[in-house]
Amino acid sequence: MTEGAAGGSAGDCLALYDLFAAYGALIDAAEFDAWLALFAATCTYHIVPRENYERGLPAGLVYCDSRAMLEDRIRALREANKYNIHTDRHLIGLPRVTGEEGDAKLVEAPVAVYQTDQEGETRLFATGLYCDRIVVEAGDLKFRDKLVLLDTFAVPSLLATPL
Amino acid sequence: MTEGAAGGSAGDCLALYDLFAAYGALIDAAEFDAWLALFAATCTYHIVPRENYERGLPAGLVYCDSRAMLEDRIRALREANKYNIHTDRHLIGLPRVTGEEGDAKLVEAPVAVYQTDQEGETRLFATGLYCDRIVVEAGDLKFRDKLVLLDTFAVPSLLATPL
Amino acid sequence: MTEGAAGGSAGDCLALYDLFAAYGALIDAAEFDAWLALFAATCTYHIVPRENYERGLPAGLVYCDSRAMLEDRIRALREANKYNIHTDRHLIGLPRVTGEEGDAKLVEAPVAVYQTDQEGETRLFATGLYCDRIVVEAGDLKFRDKLVLLDTFAVPSLLATPL
Repeated sequence: MTEGAAGGSAGDCLALYDLFAAYGALIDAAEFDAWLALFAATCTYHIVPRENYERGLPAGLVYCDSRAMLEDRIRALREANKYNIHTDRHLIGLPRVTGEEGDAKLVEAPVAVYQTDQEGETRLFATGLYCDRIVVEAGDLKFRDKLVLLDTFAVPSLLATPL
Repeated sequence: MTEGAAGGSAGDCLALYDLFAAYGALIDAAEFDAWLALFAATCTYHIVPRENYERGLPAGLVYCDSRAMLEDRIRALREANKYNIHTDRHLIGLPRVTGEEGDAKLVEAPVAVYQTDQEGETRLFATGLYCDRIVVEAGDLKFRDKLVLLDTFAVPSLLATPL
Repeated sequence: MTEGAAGGSAGDCLALYDLFAAYGALIDAAEFDAWLALFAATCTYHIVPRENYERGLPAGLVYCDSRAMLEDRIRALREANKYNIHTDRHLIGLPRVTGEEGDAKLVEAPVAVYQTDQEGETRLFATGLYCDRIVVEAGDLKFRDKLVLLDTFAVPSLLATPL
């Protein structure tokens, strides 16, 4: 057992942990440019209710099939958030490498997202599972495909932040 | 500080993290055969309210003193779950090695379990602490004794999934 | 990528994870002397609502500017807790090194704290972000400055436990 759990070196595994830690932290700090920089030049970002995904239904809550779409989405969210003030807090569990596909690692991590409103009350917003393809680009780990499987399908269809 | 936090190598520590990540993920994916494979050939699995445990009261919610009992329990849950549809999401904190006992490591990790019902609403189901004895069997880390100390003792006595 | 995510060795990074795991576990187990031992000889401990912090308002919920103040605070909490029985459960996300300042590492980690009352009901108490300065003292990592940024500002001003 001198290898990391991911089948790579310990450093590889910790870089993976750090990618997920940064992912959640940057959303919570509303640092969306730095957050976008965690994605590969060619990337996708989907939020799909778990139930739809398991039944093979295509309907997703958020569907960004390119980096340009993801950047557009973030621009729209920033505009909307001027009027919808809340803060987020992501709790992301330990990431787990479940396989490989070409040059990408398949990685999953559970997540719970809390939101705090203007009255200062914090509520569970959603739980789910990240099912991602992660690649190395210019020496850094990046999300090439991020799929957020939402347990909670009763969320507002216009999500005010990325998950 | 070239050693992992557990006093072993970094690889050992990450293998431990991966064991807990797999434990939660496999319950949430209802992959119970793969989940059972995380336990040693000789194993125990107990769920006990924290209060009972601290007072030395024996009463537990789930009491499996052998692998056969644990397998029976899982069979029963699968049957029950045909009628009690919900999904789980485990958020498990960083595992922490607290000691050794013979060839086993004593490891603790906090956990929050969320359940989503058929209406798509997600609620906190329980929080607690895993207090486990973990051994190496055929080169892999396995749970020999898993004790789930539940903070929440107001849970249904017939648990519909493992925790 | 042979380096840990923190820019240090994998062992350094895991020691950091272990420090946060111990921090939460020792509060939850009410082992406050061991918890105090995670702080440097010279240390600070502040709990501030995130909103106040971002606006530069000084008002904090807890303000301990020295180790003596922190020890006093813990003594007071122990006394108060004889009459206010509840248990805590900390779920702390992956810590993330965000920079350096002199001999200290700047480290952040998200947290959710649950409390269980005497009726056995568990509720989300608060979410927030640890923003800490961590140093090496006699070979061990210690918290020199711990700042708990609370998302939830609607918490009782007399907190019954440390966060």
